[in-house]
Amino acid sequence: MPILTGEDYIRSLRGRGLDVYVLGEKVEEPVDHPLIRPSIQAMAATYDLAVTEPELASVARPGLGHRVSRFLHVAESAEDVVAQNKMQRRLGQLTGTCFQRCVGMDALNALYSVTYECDQAHGTEYHARLRRFLEALQRENLVLGGAMTDPKGDRSRGPSEQSDPDLFVRVVERRPDGLVLRGAKMHQTGCLNSHWIVVMPTMRLREADRDYAVVAAFPATQKGLTFVYGRQSCDTRALEDGTIDQGNARFSGQEAMILLDDVFVPYSHVFMDGEVEFAAPLVERFTAFHRRSYVCKTGLGDVLIGAASLIAKMNGADKASHVKDKLVEMAHLNETIYGAGIASSYESKPTAAGNYQNDEMLANVCKHNVTRFPFELARMAQDLAGGLVGTLPSDRDFEHPELGPKLKKYLRTVDGVSVDDRRRVLRLIENMTMGRNAVGYLTESLHGAGSPQAQRIQIARFMDAPSKEALAARLAGLEEWPR
Amino acid sequence: MPILTGEDYIRSLRGRGLDVYVLGEKVEEPVDHPLIRPSIQAMAATYDLAVTEPELASVARPGLGHRVSRFLHVAESAEDVVAQNKMQRRLGQLTGTCFQRCVGMDALNALYSVTYECDQAHGTEYHARLRRFLEALQRENLVLGGAMTDPKGDRSRGPSEQSDPDLFVRVVERRPDGLVLRGAKMHQTGCLNSHWIVVMPTMRLREADRDYAVVAAFPATQKGLTFVYGRQSCDTRALEDGTIDQGNARFSGQEAMILLDDVFVPYSHVFMDGEVEFAAPLVERFTAFHRRSYVCKTGLGDVLIGAASLIAKMNGADKASHVKDKLVEMAHLNETIYGAGIASSYESKPTAAGNYQNDEMLANVCKHNVTRFPFELARMAQDLAGGLVGTLPSDRDFEHPELGPKLKKYLRTVDGVSVDDRRRVLRLIENMTMGRNAVGYLTESLHGAGSPQAQRIQIARFMDAPSKEALAARLAGLEEWPR
Amino acid sequence: MPILTGEDYIRSLRGRGLDVYVLGEKVEEPVDHPLIRPSIQAMAATYDLAVTEPELASVARPGLGHRVSRFLHVAESAEDVVAQNKMQRRLGQLTGTCFQRCVGMDALNALYSVTYECDQAHGTEYHARLRRFLEALQRENLVLGGAMTDPKGDRSRGPSEQSDPDLFVRVVERRPDGLVLRGAKMHQTGCLNSHWIVVMPTMRLREADRDYAVVAAFPATQKGLTFVYGRQSCDTRALEDGTIDQGNARFSGQEAMILLDDVFVPYSHVFMDGEVEFAAPLVERFTAFHRRSYVCKTGLGDVLIGAASLIAKMNGADKASHVKDKLVEMAHLNETIYGAGIASSYESKPTAAGNYQNDEMLANVCKHNVTRFPFELARMAQDLAGGLVGTLPSDRDFEHPELGPKLKKYLRTVDGVSVDDRRRVLRLIENMTMGRNAVGYLTESLHGAGSPQAQRIQIARFMDAPSKEALAARLAGLEEWPR
Amino acid sequence: MPILTGEDYIRSLRGRGLDVYVLGEKVEEPVDHPLIRPSIQAMAATYDLAVTEPELASVARPGLGHRVSRFLHVAESAEDVVAQNKMQRRLGQLTGTCFQRCVGMDALNALYSVTYECDQAHGTEYHARLRRFLEALQRENLVLGGAMTDPKGDRSRGPSEQSDPDLFVRVVERRPDGLVLRGAKMHQTGCLNSHWIVVMPTMRLREADRDYAVVAAFPATQKGLTFVYGRQSCDTRALEDGTIDQGNARFSGQEAMILLDDVFVPYSHVFMDGEVEFAAPLVERFTAFHRRSYVCKTGLGDVLIGAASLIAKMNGADKASHVKDKLVEMAHLNETIYGAGIASSYESKPTAAGNYQNDEMLANVCKHNVTRFPFELARMAQDLAGGLVGTLPSDRDFEHPELGPKLKKYLRTVDGVSVDDRRRVLRLIENMTMGRNAVGYLTESLHGAGSPQAQRIQIARFMDAPSKEALAARLAGLEEWPR
Repeated sequence: MPILTGEDYIRSLRGRGLDVYVLGEKVEEPVDHPLIRPSIQAMAATYDLAVTEPELASVARPGLGHRVSRFLHVAESAEDVVAQNKMQRRLGQLTGTCFQRCVGMDALNALYSVTYECDQAHGTEYHARLRRFLEALQRENLVLGGAMTDPKGDRSRGPSEQSDPDLFVRVVERRPDGLVLRGAKMHQTGCLNSHWIVVMPTMRLREADRDYAVVAAFPATQKGLTFVYGRQSCDTRALEDGTIDQGNARFSGQEAMILLDDVFVPYSHVFMDGEVEFAAPLVERFTAFHRRSYVCKTGLGDVLIGAASLIAKMNGADKASHVKDKLVEMAHLNETIYGAGIASSYESKPTAAGNYQNDEMLANVCKHNVTRFPFELARMAQDLAGGLVGTLPSDRDFEHPELGPKLKKYLRTVDGVSVDDRRRVLRLIENMTMGRNAVGYLTESLHGAGSPQAQRIQIARFMDAPSKEALAARLAGLEEWPR
Repeated sequence: MPILTGEDYIRSLRGRGLDVYVLGEKVEEPVDHPLIRPSIQAMAATYDLAVTEPELASVARPGLGHRVSRFLHVAESAEDVVAQNKMQRRLGQLTGTCFQRCVGMDALNALYSVTYECDQAHGTEYHARLRRFLEALQRENLVLGGAMTDPKGDRSRGPSEQSDPDLFVRVVERRPDGLVLRGAKMHQTGCLNSHWIVVMPTMRLREADRDYAVVAAFPATQKGLTFVYGRQSCDTRALEDGTIDQGNARFSGQEAMILLDDVFVPYSHVFMDGEVEFAAPLVERFTAFHRRSYVCKTGLGDVLIGAASLIAKMNGADKASHVKDKLVEMAHLNETIYGAGIASSYESKPTAAGNYQNDEMLANVCKHNVTRFPFELARMAQDLAGGLVGTLPSDRDFEHPELGPKLKKYLRTVDGVSVDDRRRVLRLIENMTMGRNAVGYLTESLHGAGSPQAQRIQIARFMDAPSKEALAARLAGLEEWPR
Repeated sequence: MPILTGEDYIRSLRGRGLDVYVLGEKVEEPVDHPLIRPSIQAMAATYDLAVTEPELASVARPGLGHRVSRFLHVAESAEDVVAQNKMQRRLGQLTGTCFQRCVGMDALNALYSVTYECDQAHGTEYHARLRRFLEALQRENLVLGGAMTDPKGDRSRGPSEQSDPDLFVRVVERRPDGLVLRGAKMHQTGCLNSHWIVVMPTMRLREADRDYAVVAAFPATQKGLTFVYGRQSCDTRALEDGTIDQGNARFSGQEAMILLDDVFVPYSHVFMDGEVEFAAPLVERFTAFHRRSYVCKTGLGDVLIGAASLIAKMNGADKASHVKDKLVEMAHLNETIYGAGIASSYESKPTAAGNYQNDEMLANVCKHNVTRFPFELARMAQDLAGGLVGTLPSDRDFEHPELGPKLKKYLRTVDGVSVDDRRRVLRLIENMTMGRNAVGYLTESLHGAGSPQAQRIQIARFMDAPSKEALAARLAGLEEWPR
Repeated sequence: MPILTGEDYIRSLRGRGLDVYVLGEKVEEPVDHPLIRPSIQAMAATYDLAVTEPELASVARPGLGHRVSRFLHVAESAEDVVAQNKMQRRLGQLTGTCFQRCVGMDALNALYSVTYECDQAHGTEYHARLRRFLEALQRENLVLGGAMTDPKGDRSRGPSEQSDPDLFVRVVERRPDGLVLRGAKMHQTGCLNSHWIVVMPTMRLREADRDYAVVAAFPATQKGLTFVYGRQSCDTRALEDGTIDQGNARFSGQEAMILLDDVFVPYSHVFMDGEVEFAAPLVERFTAFHRRSYVCKTGLGDVLIGAASLIAKMNGADKASHVKDKLVEMAHLNETIYGAGIASSYESKPTAAGNYQNDEMLANVCKHNVTRFPFELARMAQDLAGGLVGTLPSDRDFEHPELGPKLKKYLRTVDGVSVDDRRRVLRLIENMTMGRNAVGYLTESLHGAGSPQAQRIQIARFMDAPSKEALAARLAGLEEWPR
């Protein structure tokens, strides 16, 4: 039975016996853990959207008898690539956080062409394996997580030069029936909300790094895996009574560390093993997709702009010209991100394998703006919120029988605005600018899909300085330049 | 005979007897005037590109026997709208200045749907007239200039409230065979390089402004027209001997003021006359097209980045990390403009008339970035150029028999770099950041298609704050908001 | 016995029986409450600094037998005003948070001249009272908190126009021996760490607002006062075991709401009562002092830059040119804040009362930069930290007997760097950019001493546009302008 | 007879027979050359200010019988250093351009302590020579120009490694009575408006560069000197009839190249000769002074803000909130520059020689902001000016008997505003943002006293990262860091 609704999805996660740690304790059932649950609900929203807006979040697969999540779809046209972005923005709007399912989608799309080209070069059969794997995922409509970032140890050394060889995921044994992997993956978005996980190399590799050139998929329940939940700012508010202080009680992101303690993968699920020269193309195509996937943050931006607009109204400040102007600036920056992102998708071109790959320059430009503008939006949102966003008493103070009414007496603003509603909006702004989802909206915007400098390196490559020099040389009347 | 090449075009401008003033003197033949000629050559480049890259700069028109300039084409698909942007960037790269032909294209595309809808509402026949006019232009492959900006007088008053009623172009007489127009149009890009000119209202109009609600086309040779050339920084360098100090001796923009001293227009060329409620849609659709037409400035940006990269090499500074980083930042900002612009074009949707209209939010976002980023690029280009960009002696100093060799002795840099080549690049950077084409790259980037505040007003409209408030309200758990 | 050391100070706070609420519960002894204690320690640092660097943080008072905290000193020279700034930066460096004692200092300095001028105008005796009050504070070397910000209700209405008259602190009764006050004060920095509190009006007042024109001091123990602790991001980490996850376990800021439920103040401690026209000068002089007091944030900036530099070394990334360049940019922005702040102090001029008042324009410029640059520094610090700043597992995970060693295996970087040390720096960066002290470093930087727009209003006043217009008119050769 | 007034000064320049080239022609009398004259008038303003505001622009020298220009005064206190800044801002306000006299002042102040220390180390007598030279300058109240920037050739090589040894000024012969110098100095501000010129090394030198370690003064009339005027944008408008199109007809900057063709200097005017290790301190102290001398640009900023405010009024747009807000932003940025600059001066400390040296970190911060903010102000001024700043017809068009009245009819705005006045303000804005004084306000702001990267290098040095790391380490609880 395929998973079709959010409810189906949440049910599918139960009883899996994952080895998960949160705040130093092993978790019995992640689905019921209040700190984890909001991240599961964010992932579930990707299923629910496929029900309420099927064109946006799923694709028809006539042979299967059910529509398949767009997150499991390899783009067959530029429109398909654009549709990913529109779905991503919508999910950002609906959850106000990271819904965690893009890495798997972008990994599948990148692997599709890379396995094809690897097979052409090496006579391997990775592409066929990948397609079978993809079909299996589609049949059950599962969540695939993608795992790329290794711990990396000393950044001035490559994988095979580290004091400890396990600081990048590697093949420690090649058995007749499959590989054994060891290592860890960092900052794994939604990993324990996934059904399957595919590991990939994190960087360009050299011949000496052969054992690190591995792409392989395994179920999240595979023996040898341990998941360690990353702390988020204000994470433990989810353990408190009440929902207001959480700001966004329903949804959160999830980043965990995965430890791979000699995990076995049969060859049917191995999509690269030693072809070091394909590590770089894989990373590049994946990041090209993934950097424009950060269009999702414009959905979060929409929420934050909306919250800023609401709080201005609740404070009675919405008519002030500077308030209106700040909202315009927030929208301008948010749409600037969006523009570069969907432009990248629209400019997709077919690969040798037949799927569509987006424009790399614009993808990097999109992500690079994502590393800057959300911090600007956060500042402006806090500006419009007023100082109370940093000094509001706790929900329990408001629930206190004597204290609560006094607080409400003094925190009233415009007639007809409920103090509780005002609190809710302030807490949402706090949540996105300093609290739990600030990790997703700010920190992950910086580092996800590569830190700012990674984009600058790619922009330097794709800007093609010599062609620009030729333009200038022609207009300046130079005959011997560029050279 | 249609005009097909740049040479054809330049020939077509001769002997027209226009009433043109430059620096206080009437010009005998603009084509031969050294100050005007570079602007004509920039326009000619639009024809030459249609020859060298026909797919990019022209469209097939089977019935006509010749391909027609894309500038005379009403977009029939989103791809058509995107193709305009690609042509614009390319022409910016080739000329390093404003090639002046976009206003007419954007006017035709906007009028196409507005006349259609006006006819539906009023039973007028503007759309059919427009199509006939367009076919005539296409037959000869002519240049159409679009004229929108009125002097506006006291900006706190509307057209009919001014002390002098002529401060906006208006109908002063309605004859049986046509209209008589009076007024002026400001900052008219490429107007005297045009064969025909179409005037349009500049703003939303009210019932009292009926005589100002006029759209009409006439040849540039029409009786009653006077053209007054606007000064550009360093314009008179074009009158000096030598070409180096001009920076970009071949190409320049052109902005002139047009005086309309009772100009007659037959009804066959009138496309609006008094339908005041269609002034606003016309302005909005025109500016929607035109604001993303500023993607052309990314072509100029390419030239400036190229010049900055060249001068860094010539100075022996290109290996410095801060130099490389500034080039990356320039490219990043330039592509950010591009992203929003082509995203706007890709998101085009069909109008009732069947042509395609681009996305207004993204068009405004594109233009708003154009009002900011070129100033950043100019600063960084001057940074990389070094102080000599502001202190380089004149070409005549270098031509001086005794002085020249001494200057060359001291201005040598890396072995093998010619001082003259270095001068040429420095002058090109000066040209684009302070000189003649700075007017196009900086000032026009600010004000063309509407000054920055005009974009903010549109962004405020299109950002749809209530829908964003609803997103925030949902996540914050508000039940009575937005309201 | 005067309070001389931090230890003396902490002792002085015990057993005061304040009515304090934190997280919905009444606090028995704030000094022992783990969530409050770090804020007390930050205040204690102001005493300790006076011991270790007496010239910096105290002034000689020969008659008293002990040096007095500079926070209780009315500046008698520009050097005195500058010395405040140097002390503030140093305390920011030492605590990495808001040490909470500036409001009282700035209030005393502002009241000094305003009471003097009020007495001159009205024959009142406020100035003498204030001096007696100040001497009493100095004798015991106490902490004075200043309370200005009222709840303000509907911001489009003045104090006397609100639905509830208590939304600004007001005199509800004038008894023969003193006044009775009712209302609340918001965002009260360090209020429950103060020995005395002085309330002041928050804005320009009109005749109708006479009951709101009140300045009065009372001990924090005064009957009728309730303190409600504001929540800070990650505040409850102080309640967890271990200190690493707090980031800065020793120090935090404190912002609480004060409820005044009919608080009696004898006339000896009333420094304004109804002289409405002196509300505006008081607010202006106080904010002039207080806006340049935000130089303290450059001390926090120093800490954050230091943390960013440390983590870059620990990650093995400190040799990368982009890393070095980001540290330079952080320093540049930080010193830009400092420059305007101390320039404002250096430009102090004597008042009629003889004390020194700093330059208002530069004070506003300083604070306005504070509303912007810390957000930039926060972004760059997170950039240099790497993604782990948002995904690091909890301290308890590292303490887990089986899990801890595995985490340490994978989080090692450069040889010789302890993973625990790396965690500590990451948590400090988290603390200042998203966690507890982000409230002080970011939110309070926005809103403390007035939100950004408040500075713009003052800059508009002090920029003296007409004098600048006269300069331009002279150079342009205008004879009738400015007008 | 000392030079006391601007008129005296201009008279003193006549008949000097300098070897000056402008636009390829040798200039008979620079004083009468219309292109040069405005720069002379800007320098003359430094004398006139000393007459109208003697405290600001001069100092008492009782023995001499006349007050001496502050530009010839070695600062004896921090107040003296601050006074330089106040004079500089005022002169910027009065001239709207570079008044060219700061380099000499800053050179004297830097040489004062460096010669002293060199004498201490080497037993030389440079300090006494310098004092005698200074007294001679003071006696006649002359202009001293400072010449530092060498051509530098291939920037990857030092002075003694260049293909041509003359690419840095050097000693080519040591005669019994003095030195013979050869080379060139670039971008020499006000050099031909100076009476004397002092050359200094441009960078840190090594032992092999001994012949380049030379400081020497000579009169501008010295045999062997040639001055080549640098082109400025729109320079030839000064040769046209009329004054309006010049924008600022009275004042301009001056940057020329000086060629030294075996110039003899007697030892009495040699202040360094081979002491290579003192080149770096000289450059550092000079740039420390000179980088905060760029406070002068805030005077230009005042003019530009005034012009923007005037044009907004003339356009009838001054009530719009976005217009007011842009003026505030311009003022904020302008005062931010000022803050860091005067803070640097206020923080001056005595040197071993007894004069006062300003704070280096803040000087670099000041200048670094100068490399950024004027470009922002220029953009905003053009924004407020409207598009006409780039398209205004020439003055001669307005003087044309038929055309002029028509232009004036259409360019009227608010009743009572003269079109000529509007033109004058538009031309002033053009002058400062694209025209002649844009070189001074923008390009020189970038490169004068060192290009942006030069400041970043110094900020990196002075930021003292280890001390900041220690602060962070202490708060994070690290015991083994910093290390």
